[in-house]
Amino acid sequence: MAEGKLILHGVASSTCTGRVLVALLEKGVEDFELKVVNVRKGEGKTPEHKALQPFGLIPVLQDGSLTLFESRAIIRYIANKFEGQGTPIYGSTPVEKALVEQWLEVEGQNFNAACKECLKYAAASPVDQEKLAQAMEKFSKVLDIYEARLSDTQFLAGDFFSLADLSHLTTGWKLFDKYKQGVVCFEGRPHVKAWWAAISSRPAWKRVLEMI
Amino acid sequence: MAEGKLILHGVASSTCTGRVLVALLEKGVEDFELKVVNVRKGEGKTPEHKALQPFGLIPVLQDGSLTLFESRAIIRYIANKFEGQGTPIYGSTPVEKALVEQWLEVEGQNFNAACKECLKYAAASPVDQEKLAQAMEKFSKVLDIYEARLSDTQFLAGDFFSLADLSHLTTGWKLFDKYKQGVVCFEGRPHVKAWWAAISSRPAWKRVLEMI
Repeated sequence: MAEGKLILHGVASSTCTGRVLVALLEKGVEDFELKVVNVRKGEGKTPEHKALQPFGLIPVLQDGSLTLFESRAIIRYIANKFEGQGTPIYGSTPVEKALVEQWLEVEGQNFNAACKECLKYAAASPVDQEKLAQAMEKFSKVLDIYEARLSDTQFLAGDFFSLADLSHLTTGWKLFDKYKQGVVCFEGRPHVKAWWAAISSRPAWKRVLEMI
Repeated sequence: MAEGKLILHGVASSTCTGRVLVALLEKGVEDFELKVVNVRKGEGKTPEHKALQPFGLIPVLQDGSLTLFESRAIIRYIANKFEGQGTPIYGSTPVEKALVEQWLEVEGQNFNAACKECLKYAAASPVDQEKLAQAMEKFSKVLDIYEARLSDTQFLAGDFFSLADLSHLTTGWKLFDKYKQGVVCFEGRPHVKAWWAAISSRPAWKRVLEMI
């Protein structure tokens, strides 16, 4: 392994791998290699991959002798390692950082599960409209809290784009844009709509979209 | 609010509040006030509490003008704020810290959900043995990965007790000790058993147990 060269095991279309790719590009890290491991094709079950990620999942980041999994742990590591370059995505004060952590946890514990439940039905063919509506109802309660928060601050942790916002891009994109549920989610939630427009138009995310 | 006095809103018997209490005591923080908010009694739904925690949940930490929720964000904040005192629970190097984050995410994303599914059935009266067995089967796959990890290192992130271990105490205690499923979980997993004995015998955790 060439020293200093990061290796990311995963596939760009995976929401968790995508999360790491956005973080790398926001931090201006170009010197990395994406080694394709597609868990949908069973490539997570090989002994080689399980030696890196015991749950057989993606992504995995290798940085020299460090092997790291769990996408939200990886993006924190990237934010720390490349603190001095690219977008300052981890907050500049202890209070800002605490609020980044808070909203990153909200994404991981609340938004992610509710959004993925919607995606399960939105991605089905044909779409089960009743189950999708039930899932969207639950998801909308999370979005109501986002609407209230984003009427006070431009981004989730404050008036700065952070890891907390970034972490929503991959799952949010699938629901809002790919499966065209955006209009429903944004109706009556102008601040969520403006926030989504702001974070999904960032160059780093557009580059990840080109890789999918 | 007296400057410097932390206020923790929650109840010691809640797994998420307990997680914060252990972190405070491990860091040697004694100057805090526990303001009881019991969500089971509907106390999370009051306008006063929702102004602090929009999801109506506990815990919430107030530190001067900072209001912070999500238990795993709060324990990170405590670890940072009191870095120079008590147990060094956040790692001493970037690599150690990355591994703390990795296993803290594994707890939040894998262990927690699987353990709580078991608890749902273990706490029922009468216990639904079939559903409990199914949930325990799923949980045991997580524990198998812990067994492999803990055969290499004394604690999850390495040979040091950290936030990652600490975060398991409250849910783990309910399943392993309170509902007596410990023997089943530890059978054939001597490293998980030794790890649990080590982390659950720490004085900070014993003090939290006295508060429950």
